[in-house]
Amino acid sequence: MKYHVTDIIRKKRAGESLSPAELRFLIEGYLNGSIKDYHLAAFLMAVCFQGMVPAEMREWARLMWHSGITFAREHRDDFWIDKHSTGGVGDKTSLILVPLVHCVAERVLGSGKVRIPMISGRGLDFSGGTLDKLDSIPGFSSQLPIDRALAQLRQYGFFMMGQTADLAPADRLLYALRDVTGTTDCLPLIVSSILSKKFAENLDGLVIDVKFGAGAFMSTLEQGRTLARALTETAQAEGVRATAVLTPMHEPLGWKVGNQLEVEECADFISGTEREAGLLEVTLTLAAEMLALASRGALTADQARAECEKELQGKQVYSAFVRMFELQGGRWDAFEKRRKILENRPRYSVMAPQGGVLSRLDALAIAKLVRSMGGGRQSKESGIDFDVGVIVHKKVGDTVRSGETVFDMVLSTERTVDVGPVLATDFISVQPTAARPRWIEEVIRA
Amino acid sequence: MKYHVTDIIRKKRAGESLSPAELRFLIEGYLNGSIKDYHLAAFLMAVCFQGMVPAEMREWARLMWHSGITFAREHRDDFWIDKHSTGGVGDKTSLILVPLVHCVAERVLGSGKVRIPMISGRGLDFSGGTLDKLDSIPGFSSQLPIDRALAQLRQYGFFMMGQTADLAPADRLLYALRDVTGTTDCLPLIVSSILSKKFAENLDGLVIDVKFGAGAFMSTLEQGRTLARALTETAQAEGVRATAVLTPMHEPLGWKVGNQLEVEECADFISGTEREAGLLEVTLTLAAEMLALASRGALTADQARAECEKELQGKQVYSAFVRMFELQGGRWDAFEKRRKILENRPRYSVMAPQGGVLSRLDALAIAKLVRSMGGGRQSKESGIDFDVGVIVHKKVGDTVRSGETVFDMVLSTERTVDVGPVLATDFISVQPTAARPRWIEEVIRA
Repeated sequence: MKYHVTDIIRKKRAGESLSPAELRFLIEGYLNGSIKDYHLAAFLMAVCFQGMVPAEMREWARLMWHSGITFAREHRDDFWIDKHSTGGVGDKTSLILVPLVHCVAERVLGSGKVRIPMISGRGLDFSGGTLDKLDSIPGFSSQLPIDRALAQLRQYGFFMMGQTADLAPADRLLYALRDVTGTTDCLPLIVSSILSKKFAENLDGLVIDVKFGAGAFMSTLEQGRTLARALTETAQAEGVRATAVLTPMHEPLGWKVGNQLEVEECADFISGTEREAGLLEVTLTLAAEMLALASRGALTADQARAECEKELQGKQVYSAFVRMFELQGGRWDAFEKRRKILENRPRYSVMAPQGGVLSRLDALAIAKLVRSMGGGRQSKESGIDFDVGVIVHKKVGDTVRSGETVFDMVLSTERTVDVGPVLATDFISVQPTAARPRWIEEVIRA
Repeated sequence: MKYHVTDIIRKKRAGESLSPAELRFLIEGYLNGSIKDYHLAAFLMAVCFQGMVPAEMREWARLMWHSGITFAREHRDDFWIDKHSTGGVGDKTSLILVPLVHCVAERVLGSGKVRIPMISGRGLDFSGGTLDKLDSIPGFSSQLPIDRALAQLRQYGFFMMGQTADLAPADRLLYALRDVTGTTDCLPLIVSSILSKKFAENLDGLVIDVKFGAGAFMSTLEQGRTLARALTETAQAEGVRATAVLTPMHEPLGWKVGNQLEVEECADFISGTEREAGLLEVTLTLAAEMLALASRGALTADQARAECEKELQGKQVYSAFVRMFELQGGRWDAFEKRRKILENRPRYSVMAPQGGVLSRLDALAIAKLVRSMGGGRQSKESGIDFDVGVIVHKKVGDTVRSGETVFDMVLSTERTVDVGPVLATDFISVQPTAARPRWIEEVIRA
């Protein structure tokens, strides 16, 4: 069968569905150079307007997945599970989930029964990235050769790494094209991009934290729900058991925002020093859903959650947390030493302009503030200042006195930041009363 | 002011209007290479979905116009007028209009008062092109240097030429990109492409023949009307007086379809040998509208039409018709000699399958038939067989007997055409009764 690229573009423009063979023609032609950037650019824009039906979305994800390698598995006696977040502010749950789910699974489901091959990303736009957080640990390497990563997975049950050139290379090319052609925020392209990399992990199960609100890419619950359904349905269709958790992202998650600061918060969370209520709720929900899937029906989510709460009372999770870094070269001692030194970092406090109840703590404004302080990338090439960030002291629903500190900016010792333009009202609102927000909106089990 | 191309694409994707400075940033960046084909491809596709407001459409046309030269004029005592057709089957009016309007204007409005700088195109897809018809005249050159063309215009009152590299070069680049990215049939891009070239002619007036129906790019009257309004309003906004004539294009115009055949029909029309009713009506309407504009109000369209009818009774138009070719190297004697020789070309007759009234003579099917016989281009590079075509003997509304010839295929003496797959029912329908079609649907005077 012979296709013509312009006919395929026109077909999508007219709102028709494309066959697997037509989609394959596009991706294969793009990879071998016979189909050009400008063809794909026009096609992707047409997809932004006309969408894709589920079968197309699945095929598009498969094509990007098959452009690279798939993790090898000898058998399916163990259950491979990963968690993906669509991106938020102060969203550090991955660093807690890997050791927590690992420990509960080993104790409750049996040794070696669950493995967590976690592939994470860098910060994107205002949103933080797990890889950037991991890079604040001296010596840690997120760029493992696949063989070594899989050996670690078999022996220790988990790894945390970044996408490599072998994994879904077509997605990397298309992502770069989408980035410059204004076609990133398009549901079928988001779904297929996320899942192409997850399919390459050869997973049995996937839990997706779909965030919505000011500090997320999806601003409304309805948009988040649509994305969550498309992700879980497409994953299920490919044989990956998937659960989506819809979580509000209006204020930052937990107490700290910034790379090193978030790793510190995870350590304190696991050791039991400090567990912010929202972070606890989101972490327990995600962990329980991961374990419920991984148990293949042996545990309900409620039972799994109770096991997680029990596990967090012991010391095993902290050991696994430190091991997770050390297996990949991270020197936890050095991190803790550095943390002590950095405790005297200069701070700038942002205070409540009046007394009352905190009704808004703007996640997006705080994320942009942290980025402007050097804690996020201004462009793809720019470096990151791992030390800077924000420490929140009051959350929405908390009572505040006039002049009381709502959050501190933790500044760099090496660079000057102009705090002149930082106005409290850009970040917070105080009202006579305000309800505490929900932490979990909805769980979608496919 | 600094713009970012991706922000501009996103803005159009979101349905916002762009400022003249933003549009200029796109075209200038594209011409200097800083903005790539893939940026423009995504932008053009977004325009297909979100459209352009009139001010944007006008600015886009202006930017393409200003990428090239504008015909020089010393004064505006004379009136420069052109006619443009959106493309049809058997549409040969330009070849009659130039000498007819010239002769009437000279006689009624005064010598040198009206000039016709006509720029025509090649056949596009199934639609015929005036330049291809002109090329069937031995020696005729449609590729005049601008200086020579303008000298001819000043001395003789008209020329007929093709678009040169100097005229709206940005439109040529964009047109090529639209052609391969499925973005040709998009109203604001059609309007700006047509008018950019017309603005470069430095016209005072423009009459646009907007065809709709099976054998036209716009299939419905409503689409044609929308295009006609956008064209006339955009032209008027730029100071070019414009009239659009909406003409149905369900069956071919006139008796003949094919390059040499259509020049023959024009000669017969002007000499008075044979004037098909539809071709006469469309030609008189367009000529009258051109003269009404060119007279700057001195003539109504009805008065101008009466003068055209009178002119067609004399011999002046035929002289001007022959002069039009000879001024640009065409050897009319050679054409007439060749016509006689070719009168014995092999023919294949397509006959009425039953008796009744002809209710359909499919313009698109006939155009594709002529193209398949070698009379049109299969690709941009392919040559044309000027001799082949179709001669129609019955038109919609005519009574036919069973087995009577409805049209003849005029075959090439040099190539074999398989007439096996030619089924009468693909081209014609015969019913007990059928109304004669309208030739002119509507005239839109801005």
